[in-house]
Formats: sequence, C-alpha cells, structure tokens
Amino acid sequence: MKTSEANLIRKLRGISTRGDRAAGVTLGIGDDGALFRPSRGHETILTCDWFLEGTHFLRDLHPPDAVGWKCLARAVSDVAAMGGRPRCFLLSLALPTNLTGRWLGQFLVGLHRAAIKLDCSLMGGDTTRQARVLVNVTVIGEVRTKRAVLRSGAHPGDILYVSGHLGEADLGLQRLRSQGRTTTNDAAIRKHLYPQPRLALGTWLADRRIATSMMDLSDGLSSDLPRLCEASHVGARIEAARIPVAECVGEKLNPGQRLDLALNGGDDYELLFTVRPAKARRIPRAFQDLPLTAIGEITRQRQLTWVGTDSRQQTLLPGGWDPFTT
Amino acid sequence: MKTSEANLIRKLRGISTRGDRAAGVTLGIGDDGALFRPSRGHETILTCDWFLEGTHFLRDLHPPDAVGWKCLARAVSDVAAMGGRPRCFLLSLALPTNLTGRWLGQFLVGLHRAAIKLDCSLMGGDTTRQARVLVNVTVIGEVRTKRAVLRSGAHPGDILYVSGHLGEADLGLQRLRSQGRTTTNDAAIRKHLYPQPRLALGTWLADRRIATSMMDLSDGLSSDLPRLCEASHVGARIEAARIPVAECVGEKLNPGQRLDLALNGGDDYELLFTVRPAKARRIPRAFQDLPLTAIGEITRQRQLTWVGTDSRQQTLLPGGWDPFTT
Repeated sequence: MKTSEANLIRKLRGISTRGDRAAGVTLGIGDDGALFRPSRGHETILTCDWFLEGTHFLRDLHPPDAVGWKCLARAVSDVAAMGGRPRCFLLSLALPTNLTGRWLGQFLVGLHRAAIKLDCSLMGGDTTRQARVLVNVTVIGEVRTKRAVLRSGAHPGDILYVSGHLGEADLGLQRLRSQGRTTTNDAAIRKHLYPQPRLALGTWLADRRIATSMMDLSDGLSSDLPRLCEASHVGARIEAARIPVAECVGEKLNPGQRLDLALNGGDDYELLFTVRPAKARRIPRAFQDLPLTAIGEITRQRQLTWVGTDSRQQTLLPGGWDPFTT
Repeated sequence: MKTSEANLIRKLRGISTRGDRAAGVTLGIGDDGALFRPSRGHETILTCDWFLEGTHFLRDLHPPDAVGWKCLARAVSDVAAMGGRPRCFLLSLALPTNLTGRWLGQFLVGLHRAAIKLDCSLMGGDTTRQARVLVNVTVIGEVRTKRAVLRSGAHPGDILYVSGHLGEADLGLQRLRSQGRTTTNDAAIRKHLYPQPRLALGTWLADRRIATSMMDLSDGLSSDLPRLCEASHVGARIEAARIPVAECVGEKLNPGQRLDLALNGGDDYELLFTVRPAKARRIPRAFQDLPLTAIGEITRQRQLTWVGTDSRQQTLLPGGWDPFTT
C-alpha cells in the first residue's frame, strides 16, 4: 500500500490512546494543534531536543526501538532536571519512505514503552519525508509554581552532588561499537540505549526544597558543570577521587582513561545538583538504589578546578560533546 | 572566532529579550527547559512544524530572513486556525558551521521581525550542526477554555468560507522560480515568502462563537478540505465559480489552470471555516480588508464534490501537497 502522511499519522495515533485526559491533553492528534489544560498552581515546563541520524544515533548501530525510547527519554530528562513531572509530548518525525514499515513499527514500540514508563502521552506532532531519520521531541511538563530548580541557584559553599555512575553510557557506546548489537544485556550498553531520566530524584529534591540548583548531565561533567557555574555566577572545585566512575569490568583502562570517561563521557542523563551544607545530612547515600555522591563544592572564585589523587589542583577544561567543535 | 554551541545560543538570546514576562515566559533561554505560566481560564495550544532545507525551502531561492519569518509564521498559523493567540515558541535549529555567520544573522532578523509582529517570544530551543539547515518550531498559544474552534465541529448545512485569495502563494513560488529573488515587491512573492497568519480573524470567529469548525490552508484546498470533513464526519460541495482565485496579472493562465492553482496551491495560510446559516449574516464581505468568501456548503453525504462553471458536479480529488506521495 502506498504510504501517505495520513497513514503515518494513523500509526502514530495508535500509541496515543492511553490516558490522554489524565495527562492534561484535552485534544490530541488530528487538529491544527493540540490542547493541554494546565494544572492550577503549576508552571508549564517546555523543552525540545534534536535526535538526528548520523549525529545522535547511527541507523546500523542503534536498534529502532532504542531510537524511539531515547528520543523521548533524553527530552524528559530536562524536565527531571528542573524537578518537574512530564505530562505529554509532541513528536516531529521525518524519515525515508522505505522506513515507514518495519523500522517505524519498532521505533514506535520503543517510543510507546518510554511514554508509558515515563507517564508522558503523545499529543501531536508533524511528519514529513527525508533521506535520513530526523526526530525532534518537545516535552510538556509541570512543576509547582516557583518550585522549579534552576541552574542559577548555586551558592558558594554549596556541596556538589551527582547521581549514579558517570561515563557508563559512553562506555556502553564504546562496547556497542566494538561488539555490535548482540550484547544488549550489558548494563552499560543498556544505559546508552535506554537511558532512565531521574524523575523520582528530581521531584524529591524540588518538592522538599533540598537542591539549590540542578541540571542533567547530557554532554559530560566537564562540559555541563561550567554551564551550571556560569548560570549561578560561581566556580566549583571537584575531587577526582570522589567521582563515581562507571565500573569498567573487562576493560583495561588506566586511571587516567577512567577519569577521562567520568569527566567527559556524555549521555548519562544523571542529575548534577547542589545542596547547602546545612541540608547535606538529608542526602542519603542512595535514593531508591541510585547512588548519590558528593564530588566537590561551589566556590565564590569563578574558576573550575579539579583536585587529582595526588592533591594537585588543575583547571577543568570542557572535554564533553559540542556539536560545533567536536 | 571558533563557533561553539554557546556562541550560537548567545546570538539566539539576542532576539529573546523583549516582553518575556508579558508572553507568560517566567524562565527563558539558558536552563534545561523554559517555564511558562499559563493564564487562568485558558487552555494551552501546542503545535510544531518542520521547515527543512530541500523540502520546505531552497537555500539558493529563499532569502534567509524569509526562512526565519516563515518558519515561525506557518507554525503560528495553526494557533490562528484554532482561534487562539500565540504566546511564545521553542526553536530547534540545525545548520552547517559556515552558515553561523551572515546567513544566521539574516535568518534571525526575519525570525525576530515575525516574533514581534506575531507577539510570540522566543523562550528556548535546541541547536546542533548538520550539513543542511533543519528547523523545527514549537509554538505555545492560548485560547479560553472550551472556546477553541476545532476541525470536527462542522454540521450539514453549514456554509463554507475561506479568507483571502487562494493559490496566491503558489503563484508567488512560480514567479520566484522564474524571476529569481530580485522581485520581492510582487504581492504573490511576498505572500509566499512572508505569509501572514490570520490571527485577528481567527480570534474574532472563536471569541464570538461564529465558526463551527476551522483550519488553516497549508497544503491546498483540495487536500485540506477532506481533513476538515473527515474530522467532522461530513462531506462538502464547493462551487468553482465562487472560489476567490489569486489575481494572475501577467500570467497567461486558462480557466482550468487558474482553478488548479486555487484548488491545489499550497502555503496560503488562509483560514477555511464553517458557519451555521443563521449566523452567516454576521460574516462581512471583508474582515479588516481581508476578503471572506462563501465557497459552498457542508453536506450530510460524506462526499467531496465541486460544481464547475458549467454546473457539472465532479469529485474533488486531493491534489495538494503530501510529502510521501508528491
């Protein structure tokens, strides 16, 4: 059967039937726009993310269901990073005609799984044809008015925390490149393919006003930490020995390579947040099995330094992902 | 100076300084997401639109400021088509490094002009590098709760109206292709390059509950009318002689070619709407200098027919733009 835009939209409708009203969606796919009824006493969080073949994923390396999962999960991670809850999303999808069958079907399986897991309903979007797969996702989230945790709230003296293990997704990408798609039961590969936005942690930190600032780690600690510090007009000092590096069982990495992975590896979608010293005792070692680790502190002096295991201080240089310089 | 994502974001910030609070934006560019404070008693309209080099515009034909204007204007048109007002937008932009200078500067001039004219503030977005220019715009609008005019509200007997002249933008594209960029004082070319969303008409029809259904004409009447009819579970009968065709001064078009332009020409962004006969007397011949024309009526029988000047009825076949079949 000939593919048309109407047929493609019909397939997308198939994953948007569940729980629309509960998600605040009063009008979903099929009109000029979608309608969302905001909850009283809440601000709406809006964030969008590119996910492009050749830049953010490779068609011969990444299974289509992982492309579907990840395009939504990474956008939802931005909502988690503000302490909000996702409600619904718009999907802009461009793809070649020969992928509108099986590839699209598996992409939608992954996207649907993510939509259910993350409690975020497909409410609309736009589709067109292109030689390569282009995805853009806009997530609509909510947070109680004035409770959003911003990048700009860090104060000198605040303690700097990260969730999870850093560099794990990058390690997963390296393993995927060398071993191929067959080994998806590897935890690092799973983290690279199916990242988990830290929603429960984000809302806990926001609702209890524990974090003074927060962001998610998408490009790597060395690239993301400067953004938080710039927004807050502060500096930071982190200790290499305290950074929770991904477990590299089987990899023959020397300490320098491991540190490089933790500082510069992207795609982890862990949370980076700051806490006033007086509230630091409220931070557990693990939140719902997710380790939380103090890695340094915020400084008045607007410099970024890291202290090596030999106690020498060095300037932290951005080594993570920048689409225009990498 | 080396381009980086941070530099690009700095340029984008330059056009987002004005009137953010008035637009409901409580947090703009620079954090994980943007924050929007919805107006009480309103629903939020969300719509997104691709605008891709090679598909929706050509770099050697379309001036960069027109690309900037049109990517926002066509997305805002979807808000007009529901009777809403635009508030703010997210811009996802991917482009080659060699276009981050002058091309981007002119693109932003056009985008900024549209943002001011349409009262729609840039609140955030995402940027990355690509070999071709990719744009995706998400517009956030508002409409009083339950006042949105949907595609699904047409009833048998309703009178079908269009605003403006149809086929004008398509004619503009044809002239632009044959004459080149130099003739932008031509009204048809201006309509193709700098479309005007019919916001004032849309809100007038919605606020006074005059229209029973509405949509904008983006792909052409013959492709868009079936969508309205399908959503409303109705058919329609239109009269060829009544369709307000673009003035083709200088073009040697026969009546058949003129009708083809009006039925199948895309990119007009005029409004197509239905009105109950009892309210039809409230529709002026022109609304703020924009002609409003009754072109036919909604029928219970779910067929689409058009009546020629010779009074013969024919089936209306979609001849407008479909990315997967054109």
